[in-house]
Amino acid sequence: MTAHNFNQAISPLEKGLGAMTHEFTCASIAALKWNILREDVSLPVAVLYEDNLLHNLQWMQEFITRYGVKLAPHGKTTMAPKLFQMQLQNGAWGITLATAQQTEVAYAHGVRRVLMANQLVGKENLAKIGRLLADPTFDFYCLVDSSENIAQLGAFFAERSLRLSVLIELGTKGGRAGVRDSAALTRLIGELANWKGVLALCGIEVYEGVLSTETEIKEFLQRAIQATTQLAHDHLFDRTPVILSGAGSAWYDVVAESFSIADLGIPLEVVLRPGCYLTHDVGAYQAAHLDIQNRNPIAAQMKSSLKPALCLWAYVQSIPEAGHAIVGTSFQNPFRNPGHLLE
Amino acid sequence: MTAHNFNQAISPLEKGLGAMTHEFTCASIAALKWNILREDVSLPVAVLYEDNLLHNLQWMQEFITRYGVKLAPHGKTTMAPKLFQMQLQNGAWGITLATAQQTEVAYAHGVRRVLMANQLVGKENLAKIGRLLADPTFDFYCLVDSSENIAQLGAFFAERSLRLSVLIELGTKGGRAGVRDSAALTRLIGELANWKGVLALCGIEVYEGVLSTETEIKEFLQRAIQATTQLAHDHLFDRTPVILSGAGSAWYDVVAESFSIADLGIPLEVVLRPGCYLTHDVGAYQAAHLDIQNRNPIAAQMKSSLKPALCLWAYVQSIPEAGHAIVGTSFQNPFRNPGHLLE
Repeated sequence: MTAHNFNQAISPLEKGLGAMTHEFTCASIAALKWNILREDVSLPVAVLYEDNLLHNLQWMQEFITRYGVKLAPHGKTTMAPKLFQMQLQNGAWGITLATAQQTEVAYAHGVRRVLMANQLVGKENLAKIGRLLADPTFDFYCLVDSSENIAQLGAFFAERSLRLSVLIELGTKGGRAGVRDSAALTRLIGELANWKGVLALCGIEVYEGVLSTETEIKEFLQRAIQATTQLAHDHLFDRTPVILSGAGSAWYDVVAESFSIADLGIPLEVVLRPGCYLTHDVGAYQAAHLDIQNRNPIAAQMKSSLKPALCLWAYVQSIPEAGHAIVGTSFQNPFRNPGHLLE
Repeated sequence: MTAHNFNQAISPLEKGLGAMTHEFTCASIAALKWNILREDVSLPVAVLYEDNLLHNLQWMQEFITRYGVKLAPHGKTTMAPKLFQMQLQNGAWGITLATAQQTEVAYAHGVRRVLMANQLVGKENLAKIGRLLADPTFDFYCLVDSSENIAQLGAFFAERSLRLSVLIELGTKGGRAGVRDSAALTRLIGELANWKGVLALCGIEVYEGVLSTETEIKEFLQRAIQATTQLAHDHLFDRTPVILSGAGSAWYDVVAESFSIADLGIPLEVVLRPGCYLTHDVGAYQAAHLDIQNRNPIAAQMKSSLKPALCLWAYVQSIPEAGHAIVGTSFQNPFRNPGHLLE
């Protein structure tokens, strides 16, 4: 599928637009030169600051370069293809996404390497990915954590003579998805053996963000390193280098440190997947970033910090009593997560 | 503005669609006869059950008819113009909305009476409403709770020779917007007097949903009745009948009961604004509806209850340990509010 409708008309009936009495295309809207302080836009509106975006892109590029690791920023954070392109132009190895539909959108906008950090399930989702894999330049990885899912994927892609690259997801008890123990891992490997040439085992994936302490996270990362070492020893990987991927936006430094110093004796591609570094914030991720600068030697050496690049503008619609303003943000609580957008 | 683009093409790149490899219009999608159990749609998908929607429409129509009150269901709940039309065809007096932009969308889809249950602020928002008021068949009301806002509205609409209908919002300490006490109300009335012929005072509005007990709510409703009586006595209303409006989805029965038995000695139009009765749920609003049936004489007499009409379908993508399924709902937590969508 090609992105034939990117410059489709934007109507005044769409949410969050301004001084429009008729349709415009994206390209022609820029020429209107909307100015928020002149109230040309009907608030609430979210604004991205280009300078700070570029600063954050460069910060992360330096960080991953100094660790010699790869970056596949999670695209669900923004789901904005123009930002995906900025990330790819600033050193990202690929884009991480959550669903087949997000993958289809990214592909239509030119992204040619996607790590789908989820299991691929559902007839239409498999069909979507199958259509994209017909393009030999499209490099796609998804996660597996059950033999049932592996059998479904194997049957579907074998029938279409396609090859699907998968990473085994490891998980922790009470967490999200992912293989819990070595017995389950052995069952998975057994099922994968039935689909040689159809499902290519390319590496191991973890998401450490469900754990709350550095100690727990480091133990989990060691488990991933051991599993990767064992599977490599057994010659079970179909890709060189083997992919070892982890990291949300709060602990990517610990993952970079643990995975980059691990010596598995095989060529390894460590892929980090933080998404929130690009827009950053002045709340939860500012606090997480301070933690990173305090504990990580490379982040500590770097001369600057991530900067908040997203700002929400809204009208105060009422100040019904002293110290109590009602702000029309259009969200139930925009300040809840991932942190205060406004200072 | 006319709704010239309602049948615009829907692309496979839009979220939550199914077996599409190219663009379709809304009208032609129906002919595809998608079936969820045949997995024709890429989950997650929200489904509305027409039978239950119609049942709920009829239930609410009977309720308001028996109380002799009017219904302006809050449209932000669904923001679905086809549902607005179903509500208007089943006895609704108008549609309640939260913003000028929502009002513009509703107008473009044929809605000709809107109660905007918020203050109207911001240059482009005033301009939007100004454009709509050029249509003499469009009946629009918004809330005021400060003399500053009244002065802004007065100046803007006077300059354009337009007349804006307003309701005074009363509020409670620590709650949302709204006039807190009689001194503030007096200041408001003073400012309104400067804009005779421009701003038409049409009634009083409250939102009782910020309070938590029936006793507090009844006291607040009595305050609204007293304020309405006083302003009517002073001949300050520019509309007959005077509008007295309240009620979210949890306490509309108490508002109906309190306002309908109040004898103010003037023609009164009581307007209720619940939004969630239409789709209902099996969580918070099911519990609220049981409370209503337990305490309200008319709801108790009615032979049936509201029925859940919205269902979210999603894939289980992993069962990594016994009793622990990971479901791809596309929301951080769809079950948080307004209640469990799935049983």
